[in-house]
Amino acid sequence: MKNYIKHDPWKIIEEGFDMKNHTASESLFSLGNGRFGQRANFEEKYSGKSLQGNYVAGVYYPDKTRVGWWKNGYPEYFAKVLNAPNWIGINVTIEGEELDLAKCKVTDFVRTLNMKEGCLNRKFTAELSSGKQIKVDATRLLSMTDDETAVIKYSVEPLNFTGKIIFSPYIDADVKNEDANYDEKFWDEVGKEVSGNEGYITVATKKTDFHVCTGMKTKLTVNGNEVETNAQSLVKEKYVQTKIEIEARQGQIITLFKFAAITSSMNYPKHDVLSACHAALSRAYSSGFDTMLSQQIAWWESKWEHGDIIVNGDVAAQQGIRFNIYQLNQTYTGEDERLNIGPKGFTGEKYGGSTYWDTEAYCLPFYLATAEENVGKNLLKYRYKQLDKAIENAQKLGFTGGAALYPMVTMNGEECHNEWEITFEEIHRNGAIAFAIYDYIRYTGDKNYLVDFGLEVLIAISRFWAQRVSWSEAKEQYVMLGVTGPNEYENNVNNNWYTSKVATWTLKYTQEAIAYVKETEPTRYTEIIEKTKFDVNKEIKKWKHILDTMYFAYNQELDVFMQQDGFMDKEQILAKDLKPSERPINQNWSWDRILRSVFIKQADVLQGIYLFEDEFDLATIRRNFDFYEPRTVHESSLSPCVHSILASKIGDNKRAYEFYLRTARLDLDDYNNEVHEGCHITSMAGTWMSFVKGFGGMRIKNDKPYFAPNIPEEWESYLFKVNFRGAILEVFVSKNEINIKNLSKKSVPLTVLDKNYTINAEQTLKI
Amino acid sequence: MKNYIKHDPWKIIEEGFDMKNHTASESLFSLGNGRFGQRANFEEKYSGKSLQGNYVAGVYYPDKTRVGWWKNGYPEYFAKVLNAPNWIGINVTIEGEELDLAKCKVTDFVRTLNMKEGCLNRKFTAELSSGKQIKVDATRLLSMTDDETAVIKYSVEPLNFTGKIIFSPYIDADVKNEDANYDEKFWDEVGKEVSGNEGYITVATKKTDFHVCTGMKTKLTVNGNEVETNAQSLVKEKYVQTKIEIEARQGQIITLFKFAAITSSMNYPKHDVLSACHAALSRAYSSGFDTMLSQQIAWWESKWEHGDIIVNGDVAAQQGIRFNIYQLNQTYTGEDERLNIGPKGFTGEKYGGSTYWDTEAYCLPFYLATAEENVGKNLLKYRYKQLDKAIENAQKLGFTGGAALYPMVTMNGEECHNEWEITFEEIHRNGAIAFAIYDYIRYTGDKNYLVDFGLEVLIAISRFWAQRVSWSEAKEQYVMLGVTGPNEYENNVNNNWYTSKVATWTLKYTQEAIAYVKETEPTRYTEIIEKTKFDVNKEIKKWKHILDTMYFAYNQELDVFMQQDGFMDKEQILAKDLKPSERPINQNWSWDRILRSVFIKQADVLQGIYLFEDEFDLATIRRNFDFYEPRTVHESSLSPCVHSILASKIGDNKRAYEFYLRTARLDLDDYNNEVHEGCHITSMAGTWMSFVKGFGGMRIKNDKPYFAPNIPEEWESYLFKVNFRGAILEVFVSKNEINIKNLSKKSVPLTVLDKNYTINAEQTLKI
Repeated sequence: MKNYIKHDPWKIIEEGFDMKNHTASESLFSLGNGRFGQRANFEEKYSGKSLQGNYVAGVYYPDKTRVGWWKNGYPEYFAKVLNAPNWIGINVTIEGEELDLAKCKVTDFVRTLNMKEGCLNRKFTAELSSGKQIKVDATRLLSMTDDETAVIKYSVEPLNFTGKIIFSPYIDADVKNEDANYDEKFWDEVGKEVSGNEGYITVATKKTDFHVCTGMKTKLTVNGNEVETNAQSLVKEKYVQTKIEIEARQGQIITLFKFAAITSSMNYPKHDVLSACHAALSRAYSSGFDTMLSQQIAWWESKWEHGDIIVNGDVAAQQGIRFNIYQLNQTYTGEDERLNIGPKGFTGEKYGGSTYWDTEAYCLPFYLATAEENVGKNLLKYRYKQLDKAIENAQKLGFTGGAALYPMVTMNGEECHNEWEITFEEIHRNGAIAFAIYDYIRYTGDKNYLVDFGLEVLIAISRFWAQRVSWSEAKEQYVMLGVTGPNEYENNVNNNWYTSKVATWTLKYTQEAIAYVKETEPTRYTEIIEKTKFDVNKEIKKWKHILDTMYFAYNQELDVFMQQDGFMDKEQILAKDLKPSERPINQNWSWDRILRSVFIKQADVLQGIYLFEDEFDLATIRRNFDFYEPRTVHESSLSPCVHSILASKIGDNKRAYEFYLRTARLDLDDYNNEVHEGCHITSMAGTWMSFVKGFGGMRIKNDKPYFAPNIPEEWESYLFKVNFRGAILEVFVSKNEINIKNLSKKSVPLTVLDKNYTINAEQTLKI
Repeated sequence: MKNYIKHDPWKIIEEGFDMKNHTASESLFSLGNGRFGQRANFEEKYSGKSLQGNYVAGVYYPDKTRVGWWKNGYPEYFAKVLNAPNWIGINVTIEGEELDLAKCKVTDFVRTLNMKEGCLNRKFTAELSSGKQIKVDATRLLSMTDDETAVIKYSVEPLNFTGKIIFSPYIDADVKNEDANYDEKFWDEVGKEVSGNEGYITVATKKTDFHVCTGMKTKLTVNGNEVETNAQSLVKEKYVQTKIEIEARQGQIITLFKFAAITSSMNYPKHDVLSACHAALSRAYSSGFDTMLSQQIAWWESKWEHGDIIVNGDVAAQQGIRFNIYQLNQTYTGEDERLNIGPKGFTGEKYGGSTYWDTEAYCLPFYLATAEENVGKNLLKYRYKQLDKAIENAQKLGFTGGAALYPMVTMNGEECHNEWEITFEEIHRNGAIAFAIYDYIRYTGDKNYLVDFGLEVLIAISRFWAQRVSWSEAKEQYVMLGVTGPNEYENNVNNNWYTSKVATWTLKYTQEAIAYVKETEPTRYTEIIEKTKFDVNKEIKKWKHILDTMYFAYNQELDVFMQQDGFMDKEQILAKDLKPSERPINQNWSWDRILRSVFIKQADVLQGIYLFEDEFDLATIRRNFDFYEPRTVHESSLSPCVHSILASKIGDNKRAYEFYLRTARLDLDDYNNEVHEGCHITSMAGTWMSFVKGFGGMRIKNDKPYFAPNIPEEWESYLFKVNFRGAILEVFVSKNEINIKNLSKKSVPLTVLDKNYTINAEQTLKI
């Protein structure tokens, strides 16, 4: 746990330079614009510890799998997002001495991520070993409005001398992934050019042959006035640089503007990637820094307008929730259905930047409520487009007849993970992907999605479940053997309640979806039946039989659902009985000890109760919560949010707030000393959920928003905004009142605390 | 499956040279002498596919573990036996053209492993591309009587020319393991010397710093008469060579004798390894080839005298069983308690040459019955000496108070394996190590072993079991959660019957052992209690409580023991229902599919019934056999032997013979196309067991040998020899009679077909 980030409602601030926090700050102060993302590495040379990172969304490399003992069915490759050419680099030399914060005396260091404006600023004074002092002020932004461009404004003021300053802006494509399995470099050079103040490199990924062109163009001002430079060029393999010398006088502000552009063959034919980069760079350069900044501010203003959360009376909480919303928005904008959200976004290499079930289970609700409708739809279409690969994946594991198993971890639809107990057994992910279709339609009302895309996916997933269960002669019931539930501290168990629940739910919902499409779009229905070779009678008959006879683990005595068969044979000790020195258990216990213990990594039965809460009365929810919560160690960042929501649900506001705290500032306070690897982007959506669905008690019921707010004792009031079918609702909750303002121009029917209301356009409902 | 080995009772013969069989033959024709072992690589250069392999027992390298996803508790290193310097190399040049069987026309090729004499011979005629023809006759042996030495007699006869032949005998220490995890070379050069016809290299292993010196000395004869040579030397890094030129006349037999010696710091101080090598080489050289060969024949004569098996009426079976006995004896002689038996012996790199539970469960009975008493004892002492490491290993997994978990795979006592479901959960190995103590004492009567060594091991293992079980409030019984039984096609199951059985047996036997030592050697008893800090009352009380209340999976309806909880929930299909194209399932099914299937890789419940057969009546054994056998796919080489023994036990001679066939010629006929990786040395002991314990029905009961022979219909008769407490018994079984001959000079009481007899010295009992 760290505690060096200064509290502020709109800014993330680091004051003073401490080298040991630097890699964590590189993660926390990351910038992104949905298209590419950049860790908060320094522009100038830095010889201290650093994880250099720039990532281009959708551009990946299939790194040969590293495995100790091979199991049949393992994928050959782990597709990972690549560390892409470094576009931020500006080496700075002062009278022959290189600026390097690891080697000089740094004072007045302030690093600021301005979440309102979407930019990163860094100010410091450096005293070189020669005694020369300079003041540096550097601002960087990745444009949200023109997502192929970025700009850096890098100002240097000589404080106690007059002399030669050399700026050497460069693009370095000779980069590699820290997590490369076999220490390989993933890029080959295609071409480069440099002349005057402009340079380009095009590189291509090995194997996948993605082409990426990175360009830079610079401008120099002295005290705000542009000056001519006589830039010299330097090229090396995978490297271009220009060199700009200036005789600087004491007190002058010398500013280098470095405009950058990144284009890729994701969006252009390969032979056009360079010319597209020229064009993008020219747009940025002609806009100039100030225009780019004001466009950036305007974009973020609109974003906050739609999805801000305000906490009154708790700056730390305010900063925490805004940081989460900010990171989510700069990671994924939803404009491109080929992209998705890696667990670390653009803030690190861990998890390979790939897609997990986090997207459907945690991120989707956030984007549904805070972004345009097409954003949620694009997340769904990402999976729709990968359906064929999911069918192939299931075939590799022996499933037939168009059954689909979506991968645990993927970039292009192919499975990338290789732990058998996860890859082959943590199959509940398939259920999350089915549920997301339901969740999207419930939120948006867009039932047409079923017709166009959803039904095909649902049929394929249902077919998987129908084969994955097996008939137990002993029980005369269907069972689900050999699975790993969301709680990964149990492996290869039988009849994980959550998995069986989400599987049978899928079988039910798919039947409803079939009926809906058949009735509303008979032609399309026939088309789907033919395309999928769906044997209506036989397959649905089997599904019904499964639904009629499925076995669910349950304990009569306790009247709670059982996480899996045999759970009550475990030693029933509680998380509170663990010694602090033993926690987290995943760092202190051997794997077998974890497995045979009762301890739960993340919500499992409770994840199911959260998803399907309408099926259970409050007493059942409370009983299960009271049984499982004390056994849960929350060693996944995805766990506390679900517990927080359920605690709110059962009226346990105190615990709801406790769980919320564990998730809201997870990265800012670096609870687990791992932020240097990147931020927990997807679990940030969980934090948002525990706010809006937890404290706000928001649900969608009967095609209407539903709220049942509560407020933590520690807060004065809070306010959040959500979209709903074209309207924006602003929900204000204080100790005494609930005000819901309809910011849109149409009336909105809704339910608050189980009472129905309609709020007219631009009116406020006060309760 | 291959079928190129010619049937012969005493020889393994390959006629004709087929390059695609060569790597398999390199395994099959391997030589060893317990101290080192050599694959049947060619002496002369061979540019075809080959796995060059020479292995020095006990000399290993801790290769950095390769793992995909790290789990807490994994070992950092996998200790593996090293590919040691190549001592056999003799390059041969005929009038400037190099002899290379991959590049010339080879006729009359015969490779013979003579099991009676313990040597390898190869004869062939080669026509070089120049048209020159030579006849080669090469014999090699690794001395069993002076196990630091070896010799090659390599004869060349020019058939159609007169010209210059150059022999270049060399030692190449620049070798590497094919299975190196990170492609590293494991040896550093320490020193070398070469002069005249003699050369030496000393190398040291990285990290472990074992020193190994390899020496060679040559002699040349023409038509049997020694000739002076003027050998020239060549040295390179990790390489020494001499070059001997001779003008050979057509029809002359030119013979190079290459004597070799290998010494290591296992047996000498490092600074003496070279001089010891000088001494060993000098012993071999002065003995000469013929003396070494006659000593070798004498050694093997005595070995066969003690442990031969004769099958009349089936040459293939005869060759198979002798091959197994031969390989076992050349892999492990039992003279050094620091050594053990790797699953591939000296015939390949797979499994790293490390020790598995195979040693106790399969090999020990073979050595008890066919070798001197100290051989079995040394196998036990190997584990005794590693007790501290086993206690450390258990501590790493969270066990306390002197509990020991012996490693799954080890070289020096440290765990080397890293699949969590095996390393941490296949803990039944601990039981096999306890049972081996009992088995050894039962066979030898050496109860003193308990006093000196056994009890400490038993207490430590019992302590492990007492902590590894846990109390189930639900069952009000002790359970054993999260284990993998011998059937590795089930992972992380609860209450594996075999594991629970062997665990509780250990708790019982340890109490008997404690009582025995207390009564017979009270001083030593006190010493052990103090050394182990054994809390007699408390610990034994807990053990008794476990024994009183242990839960065993059992199915009432079928009246069979259950392999584990939930086994009957699986789809109950049988191995015979599998399509041939799906077998072996481990090559055709994904791992999860294997896991949730009913199919059993190797005897599991049946392994327990085999070990503890006296606890069960015949009907129970038959019921369990009939239930589990049809579900067993025998995809471990260790499986059919146990099934064969039990089939014999229940009088199902037909199936006993079928299972026997699956194990006896496993390697010779290369059933699974994997012999190129090495022979299944440890399972060869299983084959021997299925003969002697299966067909011969041999047991030890009440301190006496017990026989209940049956004979496969296909055979006329068979004969085997076993040691028993200083006596040798020769058991002859034909369709009509059983003759047991006491070859020793003292009378032997025994039981045959449940009747007691005593056979006087050198007399025969006819039944």
